Amino acid sequence: MPTGPSFLSISQWGELIEEALAHPQAVGPIRNIRDDDARVFDAIFIGGGAAGRFGAAYMRAMGGRPLIVDCWPFLGGSCPHNACVPHHLFSDCAAELMLARTFAGELWFPELKGKITSIKEVVDLFRKGRTGPHAVMNYQSKEQLDIEFLLNAPARIVDAKTVEAAGEIFSARALVLACGAEAAPLDAPGAHLAGVHTYESIVETLGRDPGPTIVVIGGGKTAIEYGCFFNATGRRVVMLVRHRPLELIPDAETRAYGLDRMREQGIEIIEGATVVEIAGDASGRVAGVIAETAAGRLEVATDFVFHALGERPRSHMAVEALGVDLDAKGAVIVDDSLRTSVPGVYAVGDLIGAPMEMFKARKSGAYAARAIMGETVSYRPSDWPDFLHTHYEVSWLGLGEDAARARYRNVVVLKLPPDTPDGLNVGLPAGDRTMLYAMARPHMSGFQKLILDGDTRRVIGAHHIGYGAKDAFQYLNALVKRGLTIDELGDLDELFLNPTYFIQLARLRAGQTSLTSM
Amino acid sequence: MPTGPSFLSISQWGELIEEALAHPQAVGPIRNIRDDDARVFDAIFIGGGAAGRFGAAYMRAMGGRPLIVDCWPFLGGSCPHNACVPHHLFSDCAAELMLARTFAGELWFPELKGKITSIKEVVDLFRKGRTGPHAVMNYQSKEQLDIEFLLNAPARIVDAKTVEAAGEIFSARALVLACGAEAAPLDAPGAHLAGVHTYESIVETLGRDPGPTIVVIGGGKTAIEYGCFFNATGRRVVMLVRHRPLELIPDAETRAYGLDRMREQGIEIIEGATVVEIAGDASGRVAGVIAETAAGRLEVATDFVFHALGERPRSHMAVEALGVDLDAKGAVIVDDSLRTSVPGVYAVGDLIGAPMEMFKARKSGAYAARAIMGETVSYRPSDWPDFLHTHYEVSWLGLGEDAARARYRNVVVLKLPPDTPDGLNVGLPAGDRTMLYAMARPHMSGFQKLILDGDTRRVIGAHHIGYGAKDAFQYLNALVKRGLTIDELGDLDELFLNPTYFIQLARLRAGQTSLTSM
Repeated sequence: MPTGPSFLSISQWGELIEEALAHPQAVGPIRNIRDDDARVFDAIFIGGGAAGRFGAAYMRAMGGRPLIVDCWPFLGGSCPHNACVPHHLFSDCAAELMLARTFAGELWFPELKGKITSIKEVVDLFRKGRTGPHAVMNYQSKEQLDIEFLLNAPARIVDAKTVEAAGEIFSARALVLACGAEAAPLDAPGAHLAGVHTYESIVETLGRDPGPTIVVIGGGKTAIEYGCFFNATGRRVVMLVRHRPLELIPDAETRAYGLDRMREQGIEIIEGATVVEIAGDASGRVAGVIAETAAGRLEVATDFVFHALGERPRSHMAVEALGVDLDAKGAVIVDDSLRTSVPGVYAVGDLIGAPMEMFKARKSGAYAARAIMGETVSYRPSDWPDFLHTHYEVSWLGLGEDAARARYRNVVVLKLPPDTPDGLNVGLPAGDRTMLYAMARPHMSGFQKLILDGDTRRVIGAHHIGYGAKDAFQYLNALVKRGLTIDELGDLDELFLNPTYFIQLARLRAGQTSLTSM
Repeated sequence: MPTGPSFLSISQWGELIEEALAHPQAVGPIRNIRDDDARVFDAIFIGGGAAGRFGAAYMRAMGGRPLIVDCWPFLGGSCPHNACVPHHLFSDCAAELMLARTFAGELWFPELKGKITSIKEVVDLFRKGRTGPHAVMNYQSKEQLDIEFLLNAPARIVDAKTVEAAGEIFSARALVLACGAEAAPLDAPGAHLAGVHTYESIVETLGRDPGPTIVVIGGGKTAIEYGCFFNATGRRVVMLVRHRPLELIPDAETRAYGLDRMREQGIEIIEGATVVEIAGDASGRVAGVIAETAAGRLEVATDFVFHALGERPRSHMAVEALGVDLDAKGAVIVDDSLRTSVPGVYAVGDLIGAPMEMFKARKSGAYAARAIMGETVSYRPSDWPDFLHTHYEVSWLGLGEDAARARYRNVVVLKLPPDTPDGLNVGLPAGDRTMLYAMARPHMSGFQKLILDGDTRRVIGAHHIGYGAKDAFQYLNALVKRGLTIDELGDLDELFLNPTYFIQLARLRAGQTSLTSM
């Protein structure tokens, strides 16, 4: 275990971060820089979120000297502060509440019928707990990864090699822009009324519990994830979706299962809806939402609106200071080595646009570090697995069935439940955290589908709704990218009852010379 | 969707199975045999559990003609009836109840402090629900896998090619013994008192709720899994373990985390204990357990004893009818082609001994089918991943740290939480279904460790306590068997927050030429 005069334990880091968040000026810059080291920095990472922190870590591991500058007093960026971590907390709550409501009054579950549970208590629990992960990351970055950083200090770009922060000037061989993204604004009158929230503002400013009706604007991951949580608390949730919800789920049947379960929980999904106005009351608080829909004008009275309309790269500073080129969506344009249009300046993470996913943030940071350290690299995300939460985990990789049939002449599908006269109301699949459903509400125990090219016998798509499978898709995807066949898959060793039934389904068909669906 | 005169839907299968379980004689044999097919059977599978059913399915997929004979009215064997499926239901309940007790009176969780919840209600829910998976498997076996079978009919072996069942004689080219295993008996006076249970009897005969104290005898998977469930219901649980509990978890630190959490939940684990007697009351019901321990004689008053002392192969019939050779533990001896000592007779599944795991049952069945159909095969389980449930999921593959250090000179360990003055009371790891713990009871949010050979940079062990990772270990294990390095692992695409943090931990160190622990 490391020690020394500047050593802070994780709990000490937690206290310092809390103090700095409450009183940023009083605490001032949090400085971990070796002033006795005369080496020039190999790179200054502007932003210590997923991309900047992993980039700096990789550079340091290679023997380079990175510096991170971040305006927050912690490393890790928005993910633990207001994005992935609260999303996962809320999605855990959604899963738990759906279970509790489904079995309300049975076994040990409380009688929740007609009862609304608090959103603010969960938000408060998050606010109190979030410095825990922050503290681990500061500790890890300093004591284990040996990264130099300056936190609680906004950076100002002087030129392509120079940054000013907390009154100091820092120079480096390269600059890495890692400023992330933020929620795109809602373009409608009344968008700034009190009670209109994004994923950022809900954890920062929620002061009281929403009333019994919530309007969610959007149909992508964040809108669905938060909408399902709000619904699980017992509130009426009206989702206004411009096109179709869950469109990013590639398999239509899987998507339909997910949507059916959302509707079954009572979520009202209105497709083809355009928000016309957020109406306010005399106190400046939201009072309702007015939208145009295919069925005409819709008005919903509510004191709480949540919108999730995508992410906007925070490219403003880099454009003003350096003139880096942007694409049509405002993302910084980079080549395969993460180089921007300005020599010596790199960009990574959400700032460079889609996919704004954790793996890309971290990996683009690491690849930029390797490029700066002289390696020849090429990074373009491709063929990644993906997921979202409804009340369930939804995970997928590869092609949906329709796309598979469009591309391959001999598509084979293995799925559970199978097509039967009983529909989905059958007792399999079942796995960790779906057992109560499988035994007593079988249509709620999940849906899964494996798609194969019957000619090469290779897996070309996998889709899962349930629990406990998301992590598996990371590794399954790596096997699929290496050409996994049904025969290889059927020869793996399953840990039964496994949330993904792919191994045993594959084994049941692997004996066939000419594969057939099931 | 298939139809036809003999077609039964899944729900119709469910009704028939329930009727047959209640009145086996009245329902009589359930016969799905093509009497108009003159071909000789390629094999008769005695037993339609995991091994027999998957063996028959594989043979049929290859174009062979298998027949399954089973005394139960459903295919799938003990797993869905009294083994893996109820275990998973009880483990789900243990996880849910630990969460509910940890947050009792907070958020929406009921006030459970000091309250005992019903075990019988969960058992009843299982009894009512278990025909659901049974029905799916009968449907799948008949309509999708096209397997012939005779159920609800005990088989009698006539000779190595002939079986009698339900008054009919069936001949085949080969016989496959797939009779499974059953709970080993407790060798102590009073073992047959009412209230002394195994995993089999608890779901078949539990007539009333146990009192406030339960004694569990054993320290392996089943004892731990059921003991944790009993504990989670609010009962005092005393575990009497002959050697050490959880010994099968290969990593000592991971095992200690698991045991600490069990003790924290109040489970009393007594190592080095030998049961002397199960004491009864005047009505023939268990009243207490007397054991010898290192600390002297121990007496625990209880009306409920659960013992799990391993599994005994059901080899009796095969020995009597055919004289197949057994090993010292009573398992049928087979070669790499699953051939017994009797020509033309194969054996598969739990009947052939350890590991008595689902993957081995199913795969040995499939490999036997391939051998009978003329393929040259070789099957010996090796390097499989493994798991058990405490209140958590515990998953592992490869070596524990001690064994790794004994075998490799340059062992590198990446783990979370790291070693710090705060111990485990830090806010990471966090992932699906551990978010409430991570935010409010961080020491309960899990433990994970990746072990690498620093010279080859290969993963040689992975260990995880938490939730949502078990499924992943199936696929991760396949990558590890293919030689997965830290560099390859760190280049995978994670789905953050991922229950296993292995990808990102690997990436943080992958830049090092000379790897160091973290």
